[in-house]
Amino acid sequence: MAIRLFELAGSNPDHLFSPYCWRTRFSLAHKGLDFESVPWRFTENDRLGFSGQNKVPVLVDGETVVHDSWTIATYLDLTYPQKTLKTEAAHLRFLNAWADTVLHPAIARMVVRDILDIIPENTRDYFRKSREAAFGMTLEQVVEGREDRRDAFRAVLNPLRIVLRAQPWLGGDAPDYADYIVAGSLMWPRSVSAFDIMPPNDLVTDWFKKTRALFDGMAEKALRP
Amino acid sequence: MAIRLFELAGSNPDHLFSPYCWRTRFSLAHKGLDFESVPWRFTENDRLGFSGQNKVPVLVDGETVVHDSWTIATYLDLTYPQKTLKTEAAHLRFLNAWADTVLHPAIARMVVRDILDIIPENTRDYFRKSREAAFGMTLEQVVEGREDRRDAFRAVLNPLRIVLRAQPWLGGDAPDYADYIVAGSLMWPRSVSAFDIMPPNDLVTDWFKKTRALFDGMAEKALRP
Repeated sequence: MAIRLFELAGSNPDHLFSPYCWRTRFSLAHKGLDFESVPWRFTENDRLGFSGQNKVPVLVDGETVVHDSWTIATYLDLTYPQKTLKTEAAHLRFLNAWADTVLHPAIARMVVRDILDIIPENTRDYFRKSREAAFGMTLEQVVEGREDRRDAFRAVLNPLRIVLRAQPWLGGDAPDYADYIVAGSLMWPRSVSAFDIMPPNDLVTDWFKKTRALFDGMAEKALRP
Repeated sequence: MAIRLFELAGSNPDHLFSPYCWRTRFSLAHKGLDFESVPWRFTENDRLGFSGQNKVPVLVDGETVVHDSWTIATYLDLTYPQKTLKTEAAHLRFLNAWADTVLHPAIARMVVRDILDIIPENTRDYFRKSREAAFGMTLEQVVEGREDRRDAFRAVLNPLRIVLRAQPWLGGDAPDYADYIVAGSLMWPRSVSAFDIMPPNDLVTDWFKKTRALFDGMAEKALRP
């Protein structure tokens, strides 16, 4: 039975924009595992009832249901040990925690408003209300002045830049889950916004392009707004 | 021939406060290697001429001279493979880059002024002028309002906190160079300032205390101002 991956999608079922789902997508491709993509939209909680919670990604592998991108990556390494993602490396957790708590808020402040335009109309009210409650301001206010905040975003990427001066991939000589964590994060703004947050002529930008080209250009060819 | 470690010292030769030297100190202790500490003060560049540069730590191991804390750690793992520091792990570089470029500036803004009080009088002018040029303001202005910035510093530690919820050490089940990178960074404010930057009742604070207790309390017993 094929692996099924429940992924966050926009109005167009091929429009995939969740950083966490992209991490899983890269991981499955890394291992050469075929899977069926099951598009899921905000508020469709009933459809995830079988998994015991209400967030994607959810991976269904035969009788096994796994949720949470980190847990899925470690599950894949245990179950399909070929082409390891190196999730057993204790040091990887720090990068994951940094991406979730430092990189994601910085990205959100640049593009969160644009998500409204790509999701189904009947989910926009939910999205706006829940996110505005979290930010304590309107989505328009959150992204206001983003042109002026590009330099600050560039600085957020500093630690990545330093690593990429020393080695071609975050995983060292070859890509591993470290690369998919950050590339997954960066697929989010790329997928939801025409506003380009990546610094020009930059090591991180070059590495991101190289990562999108992996797996026959899977991420490079992904739908954009 | 014993290993010699040139370390940054205050007026008191036992007053060690460089984050980079502390990383090396922890690493040598981790491997159970005896070494002779050679105190070095700011401006004593002539004394490092043999190493081809002007910064500590410098490690002298027989005929071999190694400088830069990262290079020293990888040298130690290659030369003394017992009790690995796990510096071969590609993911470790990200933590090192984050500590150097995010954690250190945040620490400096809290304690850099206090360094003046523990270094020899004839080096204070050099220290003040070079650092004030870098910050573009007086050292007093840099640390001004630090009581109000403790919450912001607490947030800087977020990614560490998340890792320590999942595992007892940054290195996983046991301490490795990941722990010594960050503990080295945190030994710096602890050694130069009576102003405590660590959040109370916090996982990171608890982990730091546990790390100071290693090697017969080497860091716990270190001289404070």
